[in-house]
Amino acid sequence: MNFFTKETKTALQAKEQALWLAFAPIAFQASKALRDLGILKVVADSGTQGVTIEDILEKVKLSRYSARVLLEAGLGLEMLIINDKRYTLTKTGFFILNDTLTRINMDFSADVCYKAMYHLQDSLTEGKPLGLKELGEWETIYPGLSLLPEPARTSWFNFDHYYSDLAFPAVLPIVFEQKPKKLLDIGGNTGKWSMACARYNEDVHVTIVDLPAQVNVAKKNIAEAGLEDRIDFYITNILDESQPFAQGYDVIWMSQFLDCFSEAEIISILRRCREALNEGGSIFILEPFWNKQQFKSAAFCLQQTSLYFTAIANGNSQMYHTDDFFNCIRAAGLEVVLENNDVGLSYTLLRCVKA
Amino acid sequence: MNFFTKETKTALQAKEQALWLAFAPIAFQASKALRDLGILKVVADSGTQGVTIEDILEKVKLSRYSARVLLEAGLGLEMLIINDKRYTLTKTGFFILNDTLTRINMDFSADVCYKAMYHLQDSLTEGKPLGLKELGEWETIYPGLSLLPEPARTSWFNFDHYYSDLAFPAVLPIVFEQKPKKLLDIGGNTGKWSMACARYNEDVHVTIVDLPAQVNVAKKNIAEAGLEDRIDFYITNILDESQPFAQGYDVIWMSQFLDCFSEAEIISILRRCREALNEGGSIFILEPFWNKQQFKSAAFCLQQTSLYFTAIANGNSQMYHTDDFFNCIRAAGLEVVLENNDVGLSYTLLRCVKA
Repeated sequence: MNFFTKETKTALQAKEQALWLAFAPIAFQASKALRDLGILKVVADSGTQGVTIEDILEKVKLSRYSARVLLEAGLGLEMLIINDKRYTLTKTGFFILNDTLTRINMDFSADVCYKAMYHLQDSLTEGKPLGLKELGEWETIYPGLSLLPEPARTSWFNFDHYYSDLAFPAVLPIVFEQKPKKLLDIGGNTGKWSMACARYNEDVHVTIVDLPAQVNVAKKNIAEAGLEDRIDFYITNILDESQPFAQGYDVIWMSQFLDCFSEAEIISILRRCREALNEGGSIFILEPFWNKQQFKSAAFCLQQTSLYFTAIANGNSQMYHTDDFFNCIRAAGLEVVLENNDVGLSYTLLRCVKA
Repeated sequence: MNFFTKETKTALQAKEQALWLAFAPIAFQASKALRDLGILKVVADSGTQGVTIEDILEKVKLSRYSARVLLEAGLGLEMLIINDKRYTLTKTGFFILNDTLTRINMDFSADVCYKAMYHLQDSLTEGKPLGLKELGEWETIYPGLSLLPEPARTSWFNFDHYYSDLAFPAVLPIVFEQKPKKLLDIGGNTGKWSMACARYNEDVHVTIVDLPAQVNVAKKNIAEAGLEDRIDFYITNILDESQPFAQGYDVIWMSQFLDCFSEAEIISILRRCREALNEGGSIFILEPFWNKQQFKSAAFCLQQTSLYFTAIANGNSQMYHTDDFFNCIRAAGLEVVLENNDVGLSYTLLRCVKA
C-alpha cells in the first residue's frame, strides 16, 4: 500500500479539493437532503432520459425554490448532471443512493458524529471525548451504547455490525483449526460471534466478557437462540487491572475491540490475555488496519473514523497502523504467527501466541 | 460553461467521492484542526525534507496520540504525504494553509454554517432559515448582522467583503461612463462602495439605502472619511412596499444585494427601482451567477453558498442562475443592455434600463 507517498494533484485540482473541504459541512448536509427528501430516487428512476424540476416537484413535497437550490448544489457535488433542463444521476449519486456502505457511513456521520465533531479540536488538545456530551452524559461512549438517543443508537450499531458481519464466516474455519474447547470472547457485545462459534462447533464452550449493559443484551439473544448451556458470561470492566481474567482458555477472541483502547490499555489487556491462555493456545485479533487496505477509500474511511474515537468514543483510541499496534503486541510478550489481510471488507486476522 | 453536463468519473472514483461525502463533517473538522493547531505550518516549513511526528511534537502542544490521528487523517484528506516516516505538504495542504479564499470560506463554514447546517433539511421543507437559531433569535440574519456572536461576526464580514473588494475598482469606470450626478446605493452596508464613488468622481451625490443597524455603521465610516456632505442616508426596510423610494436618480447601484431575496421580492425591488430612475438612467447590478463562472470550483462554491441562504440567512434566496434572475428583470419592466462576466473574482456586472 503506497497510497500516501506521492503528490497526485495538479494545482487546479488541489485548489478544487481545498475549496471542497472548505464547504464540506454544507456539501454533506446537501447530499443527505438530496437522498432523504427523495430527490435522488426520482432522478434515478428517470434513467438516461432524465427529469425536469417540474417532474420532480410532482413527486416530492418541496417548494420550487427548495428543490432548485438542492438540485444546483447536487450539480456541484457531481451527484447529478443536467442537459436540456433534465437532470440525470451520476455514478456518485448512484452510490449515495444505493451503496449500503456509503449509506451506513453517512448515517453514522450524521447521527453520531455531526454535532459532536464541532468539539474535535478541543478533544485533541484536552485528550477527552468532548463531543460525547452532544449524545449523553457519560465519560466514554461504552456504558452509554444501548442508551444512545435515536437515531444515533441505530446508526451506531448499523455501522459497528456492518463490517464484522461480513468478516465472521471467513474466519471461523481458521479459529477452529486446532479444535479449541474453551473460548473467551472479549467484548462479546450482542453475542453474535459467540453464537456463530457455538453453531459452528458443537464441542466448544464460550465465555463472553463485557460490561453489564452489553451482557444483558447478549444474554437475551443467546437464550432466544437456545444456546445458554454452551455460552456463559463474565461481567467486568476490562480496564480494571485488579480483576484477573479466568484461566485456561484455548482461544481468546477479540473482534474490532482493541481499537477502542489506548496503546497502554491494549498492552495491559493483552498481558492479561496471555496469562489466561493455555499452553499452545492462540489469541485471535480481528481488526481493520488503515495501512493494510486494498483501496485508498477504505484507508480514508478508517483514518476519519479514528477521529470519532478522539472526539466521541473515549478520546484516546483509533483505527491503528500496524506499526503502532504490533508494538503493543510485542510489549505484552506475544508474537504474531499469522497475518491474513483479506478478511471481509477491510479486516486483518492476527493469530498471536506467547513469545 | 458546461461543467455540469457530463459524467466525469469512473465507478471507483465515484465510490471514493461518495465515501468522502459520507465522512465530510469529520474531514472538515480534521482539516481545520490541522490548520489551526499549527501542524500544517510546521510541515510546510520543513519543505521537501519533511518532518517526523517527533519533530512536530517539539513545536505544537499536543499528545503523540492527538498529533498522530490528525496526521493520519491528513494523509487520507490528501493534505499530507509520508515517506520514510517524514510528512510533507501537498498542494491541497498548501491551499488550506495559505490560500486566502479557501481560508475565508472555511472560517465562514465553521463559524457561521457548521452548527446551523444541521437544520438544512427542515429549513428546506418548512421554507424558513431554521439554522439561524444557532446564532441568535432573529427572523432573518439581516437585522442581526452587526450583533452576531464572535467569531461568526468576523467570519461573516470577511466572507462578504472579500469578493466585493476585488470587484469595485473594475466597475467604477463603467458606472461613471455617463457621468451620473445622483446615485442611489441600495443595501449600502458599511458604506464602502459609496465612499469609493465619492472619491472616484467629485460631482456625484450618493444616497445609501439600508436598515438602521447598517446605516449606523456606514455613517460612522463616512464621517471619519470626511465625506458626509456628499453621501446621505435613507433608512428603510426595502421589503416594505408601502415605502416608495425617492425619485430622480441617474444611477441605481446594487452590489451582491439581490441574491439576499426571493424572486418575488427581487421583482418588487426592481419595479420600485424603475420608478426611481431618471429618463436615460441605469440600474447596475453586481452579482455572482453560478452558471457564469470560469472555474468549476467557483460554481461549486456559489452552489453551496446558496444553502447558507436557505438554512441561515432568510430561507428563500440564493446565488442565482442567470435564467431565473433575468426572468425577474424582465418581469420588472427592465432590460439588460450590458452583461460583463469578467469582474473581480466571480462577478457579473449588469446594466439594466427601462424596457
